[in-house]
Amino acid sequence: MKKLYWLFVLSFSSLFVSAQGGMPNEDAWMIRKIYDKSLTEGQCYPWLHFLTKKIGNRISGSPQSFAAVEFTRQMLDTLGLDSVWLMPCVVPHWSRGNKSIAKIVGSKIGDVDMKCLALGGSVATPAEGILANVVEVKSLEEVEKLGKANVEGKIVFFNRPMDNTQLNTFSAYGGAVDQRGSGASVAAKYGAVAVLVRSMTTRLDDVPHSGGVNYQEDVPKIAAIAISANDAEKLSDLLKTGKTNVFVKADCKWLKEKNSYNVIGEIKGSEYPNEVIVVGGHLDSWDVGEGAHDDGAGCMQSMDVLNIIKKAGIKPKRTIRCVLFMNEENGLRGGKAYGEYVKNSKEKHIVAIESDAGGFTPRGFECESINENFNTYLKNMQEWLPLLEPYGLSIKRGGSGADISPMRPHKVFLIGLRPDSQRYFDLHHTEIDTFEMVNKRELELGTASMTSLIYLLDKYGLK
Amino acid sequence: MKKLYWLFVLSFSSLFVSAQGGMPNEDAWMIRKIYDKSLTEGQCYPWLHFLTKKIGNRISGSPQSFAAVEFTRQMLDTLGLDSVWLMPCVVPHWSRGNKSIAKIVGSKIGDVDMKCLALGGSVATPAEGILANVVEVKSLEEVEKLGKANVEGKIVFFNRPMDNTQLNTFSAYGGAVDQRGSGASVAAKYGAVAVLVRSMTTRLDDVPHSGGVNYQEDVPKIAAIAISANDAEKLSDLLKTGKTNVFVKADCKWLKEKNSYNVIGEIKGSEYPNEVIVVGGHLDSWDVGEGAHDDGAGCMQSMDVLNIIKKAGIKPKRTIRCVLFMNEENGLRGGKAYGEYVKNSKEKHIVAIESDAGGFTPRGFECESINENFNTYLKNMQEWLPLLEPYGLSIKRGGSGADISPMRPHKVFLIGLRPDSQRYFDLHHTEIDTFEMVNKRELELGTASMTSLIYLLDKYGLK
Repeated sequence: MKKLYWLFVLSFSSLFVSAQGGMPNEDAWMIRKIYDKSLTEGQCYPWLHFLTKKIGNRISGSPQSFAAVEFTRQMLDTLGLDSVWLMPCVVPHWSRGNKSIAKIVGSKIGDVDMKCLALGGSVATPAEGILANVVEVKSLEEVEKLGKANVEGKIVFFNRPMDNTQLNTFSAYGGAVDQRGSGASVAAKYGAVAVLVRSMTTRLDDVPHSGGVNYQEDVPKIAAIAISANDAEKLSDLLKTGKTNVFVKADCKWLKEKNSYNVIGEIKGSEYPNEVIVVGGHLDSWDVGEGAHDDGAGCMQSMDVLNIIKKAGIKPKRTIRCVLFMNEENGLRGGKAYGEYVKNSKEKHIVAIESDAGGFTPRGFECESINENFNTYLKNMQEWLPLLEPYGLSIKRGGSGADISPMRPHKVFLIGLRPDSQRYFDLHHTEIDTFEMVNKRELELGTASMTSLIYLLDKYGLK
Repeated sequence: MKKLYWLFVLSFSSLFVSAQGGMPNEDAWMIRKIYDKSLTEGQCYPWLHFLTKKIGNRISGSPQSFAAVEFTRQMLDTLGLDSVWLMPCVVPHWSRGNKSIAKIVGSKIGDVDMKCLALGGSVATPAEGILANVVEVKSLEEVEKLGKANVEGKIVFFNRPMDNTQLNTFSAYGGAVDQRGSGASVAAKYGAVAVLVRSMTTRLDDVPHSGGVNYQEDVPKIAAIAISANDAEKLSDLLKTGKTNVFVKADCKWLKEKNSYNVIGEIKGSEYPNEVIVVGGHLDSWDVGEGAHDDGAGCMQSMDVLNIIKKAGIKPKRTIRCVLFMNEENGLRGGKAYGEYVKNSKEKHIVAIESDAGGFTPRGFECESINENFNTYLKNMQEWLPLLEPYGLSIKRGGSGADISPMRPHKVFLIGLRPDSQRYFDLHHTEIDTFEMVNKRELELGTASMTSLIYLLDKYGLK
């Protein structure tokens, strides 16, 4: 242990005394200071405690979403920023109503209540529920192949699991989530009366995962309900032995749209106040659990970036703006409102960074942009790697984040924080996405890594 | 998400079709296969479930430690190995007896029962316990400075926290653990009657952490008790306001030594059966919690390496041997017995790999050896990095593992698996080091990364 310790000290020291990668030592020292401050004076963890435990989950339009706006506005107000303001946006308001039901009925193992959650945005079933025969499929294409003859009047059960051999669980999610997003409308096209969807998770457990369903406008809307992976396995086993009936009931409804807000705080740039670097996450969550990793973590980290910039004594040349977007989960209205703002504002948005992949140990950043200079910018940013690699960070081409995507047409350079992805889909959109699942140090390292990159972006700009 | 997915597929494909870093595509395919098998047919997770839930913690000499020997032997027997055998070693047997007590007495906030655990190996207090005044120090040196006049008859309270600014928590541990290991004897030299030690953790919480105390032979042995970080803060605050008394009681005892075993399973090499690659962890744990991360994880991964080699259809040229070492926590007798075996055996041990830093997402390997060719071997191993970096793995100079360290004098090339370290000291040596704290995928990735490195080491040898 001792030996290891000295090797570690040594490797950091060499970073400071030599000008590795041509970067000034000053930058190495400042990044070390940013990490020190984040790991000792960071606020993201206690803030997240309040957000999750005193406010809880906060679907757009809900009273809790308004509490989250007010809480974060007040916390930003404590940081001595140059301005803190709310950007209005009108948001949809969906309510799941009474607990949904998905029950295997009259099977050889009797009646089985499956652990389920209506998908976000689902319509209700008729008040008396629906009892129907189930047909299992593994893909949208399989529904098309089965056609009306095999689907009409039935409940279609989408049961393709996430591919656990994918190293990056987001890739596995991307390979399975079409069932959740589009399954209901594809099935309804052939006369299905409801859909069950296997939860989007890498685990076999009893935890159902919600998440959005997207209806096509030209097809009847049918109820869409996620069941736990264990229940999906059970139902699939039963179906192998013969016809199986399931009773489903969902009580969801759309309420009136509400006036809501993005929450914004900023430090004005000393030299180029008109050039803006955005860092953010989304303040809304689904209506289960506490929205801790998704995306309380990203919001608290983004606020903490401003805190750490202040604490480290950095005086940014450009404007650093924290934006907590409303309504990522079911409408992206906050992101779209901010996109409109970028379009109409006289400010020049150079970079936007989003943290919306959980509060786990950061592994690096992914970048994208339609800016004609993207490749040059990226290449030049990668020259900072000698400063960031000691902290386990990479800079790669890739995706960014949903909330900042409406800035894409405006040629903003978009960056997504990429934490270790192994645990994310254990808890994504579930009752167990709670404060207890967040590790303090891992969360703080997210703040530190974004602050470090912003420090460099602010100092050197995109080149 | 989709976009991300295809980028990912693409980056892997390019690894297979081009001979990156001069490595044959065959190796890239085999490593991909190893990961696929580990993530879908790995046994480490269900094995760990049995070890932690059916057997539980297993301090050397305990009945559970014998159950662990028998369980792992039986599991290795299911793998179709060339041999499975037990290597005898005599182990010490320490028992904590009744629950220890550390209680603030008669303070301005009344009596406070502190969350505590006697350190492993601690002697008992007198049966009636000890009530004494407390003196707080931050280092061993501070005790020397205080001297007999300020220490005699008192309970010395070591309260230097782990340095949270260290990125690698093992470095922070290395910088604080001298208090736990040596504090009792240093304090006893100046007449202290007992020591309290702040738990070795990066958190502020109520969980006391055990771990070994090492007594000097020439100094009276006094009881050593760890208190939780929160209680350490509380006691320190009280001491700032005036003299404070604490009552301590520990009931520990040394029982008779027991005949125990290292558990060994191996696949004989087809070309060089006499050249041995060892992979292992330690089977014993402290007597609290379930010893899940420390080091059930490392043992189950090491067994699973043999399973995955078989499942992937690899026919090793060299002998691949899984060794589950007994008694790492309080004696290293298993490691020493194996070291003796290496010394006396006609086999040539070329490499030993240990997994004993928790079952978290692997970040790479650290290597050490007194072999005169160490630098060359390491440099040549690093040529494999293009094959391993896509899986997030690095190969660096550093430490290895306690159990394999007795092979150091025999010039074996020693390697430690290095997982992400952020969460390890939340649970190290505590009641909360349980199965629930282990993520299936993170655990399996440890198996996969060790199997991949062993595949390359076996195929190409050390050069």
